Amino acid sequence: MRFKFRPVDGSFYDLFSEAAQHLVVGAGLLGEMLSEGNSRAEIAQRMREAEHAADETTHSIVRRVNSTFVTPFDREDIYSLASALDDVMDEMDEAVDLVLLYEITSLPPETAEQVEVLQRCAELTAEAMPRLESMKGLEEYWIEINRLENAGDKSYRRMLANLFSGEYDALQVLKLKDVVEALESAIDAFETVANIVEQISVKES
Amino acid sequence: MRFKFRPVDGSFYDLFSEAAQHLVVGAGLLGEMLSEGNSRAEIAQRMREAEHAADETTHSIVRRVNSTFVTPFDREDIYSLASALDDVMDEMDEAVDLVLLYEITSLPPETAEQVEVLQRCAELTAEAMPRLESMKGLEEYWIEINRLENAGDKSYRRMLANLFSGEYDALQVLKLKDVVEALESAIDAFETVANIVEQISVKES
Amino acid sequence: MRFKFRPVDGSFYDLFSEAAQHLVVGAGLLGEMLSEGNSRAEIAQRMREAEHAADETTHSIVRRVNSTFVTPFDREDIYSLASALDDVMDEMDEAVDLVLLYEITSLPPETAEQVEVLQRCAELTAEAMPRLESMKGLEEYWIEINRLENAGDKSYRRMLANLFSGEYDALQVLKLKDVVEALESAIDAFETVANIVEQISVKES
Repeated sequence: MRFKFRPVDGSFYDLFSEAAQHLVVGAGLLGEMLSEGNSRAEIAQRMREAEHAADETTHSIVRRVNSTFVTPFDREDIYSLASALDDVMDEMDEAVDLVLLYEITSLPPETAEQVEVLQRCAELTAEAMPRLESMKGLEEYWIEINRLENAGDKSYRRMLANLFSGEYDALQVLKLKDVVEALESAIDAFETVANIVEQISVKES
Repeated sequence: MRFKFRPVDGSFYDLFSEAAQHLVVGAGLLGEMLSEGNSRAEIAQRMREAEHAADETTHSIVRRVNSTFVTPFDREDIYSLASALDDVMDEMDEAVDLVLLYEITSLPPETAEQVEVLQRCAELTAEAMPRLESMKGLEEYWIEINRLENAGDKSYRRMLANLFSGEYDALQVLKLKDVVEALESAIDAFETVANIVEQISVKES
Repeated sequence: MRFKFRPVDGSFYDLFSEAAQHLVVGAGLLGEMLSEGNSRAEIAQRMREAEHAADETTHSIVRRVNSTFVTPFDREDIYSLASALDDVMDEMDEAVDLVLLYEITSLPPETAEQVEVLQRCAELTAEAMPRLESMKGLEEYWIEINRLENAGDKSYRRMLANLFSGEYDALQVLKLKDVVEALESAIDAFETVANIVEQISVKES
């Protein structure tokens, strides 16, 4: 219970909000990828740009941590949160990348459920980041992310069963499984973000 | 080497013991799943109940961390240990779930070795949790878990070789591989629990 | 910003350098595995010995942490770094092991690129470890590892696309994918080492 003298440095909250906004963009691109008639190569290109922008934000956070004397919460926690947000983007990018690499032309309908969960998680995370300043209203955020992750997990398992139902050959199963696993990992990565927010909140309260 | 004033709050040890007891139940259910003549749907149902009970215990620990002024060891370590115990249950639950989802009727004989390792790990972990209070006799626990994990790893690799020996077609390999990987991940998750106990012990000694 | 009284205990740096030297040996053995005409069983045996030697070094670090009153940086960071270095070796060992277990006779040419990345990462890590003492010149190390990891990731994805190009049947894809994933995980594990060094550097600066 050491004494804390921590004047607020607003820019960290802004940078975390910026990082979460990139995830909103990424989740939107996943939605476009599922719609017929869109150019996947072009979507993959925009995803790559979103991923680079997210990297930039992450590096800005790390640079600011290094150059700031007093941070709003522990340096290591700022670092963990930044890299957890970055991990979400990497998984979403991987999903789009695999669809292109494997030349997958149609995805199982349940992937739409996963992408909806990802879009909802991205919005909730973007809404939660500015609340890190007051540390208020965060509990409902992490509870809802956990609920969404459970729902996503159910879609994921149902989808796995369908993949093996006889409709697909082994090579198709291997390809589709990698894509749905990347989407599932992106959902899990949102849960990791929420868990870190919960831990920060526990420490700072 | 800051001065520590940490009156013991017994209930944390009780809750960790409770969490480990759920893992003993889960590992027992994995054993039942391997026996012929048992209803797998019913075992999966009981596993789901054990998993929910484990979630409850995890939440009790997190709630207690949040409401307790002085904890027996660092808040973050309590949090890590609780979620590592929870991860073991998730992996065991996944193994049972996949057997059901994939409609697997027979498992390779080596899975019995993995399940034995899991049962032994669960017992050792349940015996170790109450010893967190005195921090005595923990070294033999984590050494033995590491030894078991190595043995489990050897079974796992032998099993992988057998999966590809020509007896199974590619779709069967894909299904069985997922189940044995979930069991292997459960064993690894026990090792993570042991590593966290080791770290706590290093910090507190 | 607490006051630090930390007389340097040189032997920790020596042990980290030793750990990284084992990785140089391991990466060299991966290179030998790719050359025609070498006995894979014999290489796997030497890899196992390197892995045991790495384990010994890890345990020496842990034992020293336990018996040293003042450590050059936080105990938990010493512990994390030691186990991250150990993880690299485990992944390299797994790659060699899988080649043997799956009786793979020829690997796709892109694996040579992954192994080159691993050899370069091992050298850079071995050069960086002694610099932990002065905490100088580490930034270029972690930036270069991150760059190599990105390059490795590109080889990995191109290789995945090739695996599914029609040249291989599903069982071959499954086997080769496991090997290239182990190599990719080894590269990722080097990045984790670099991230931990970066975090230590952030904390200690």
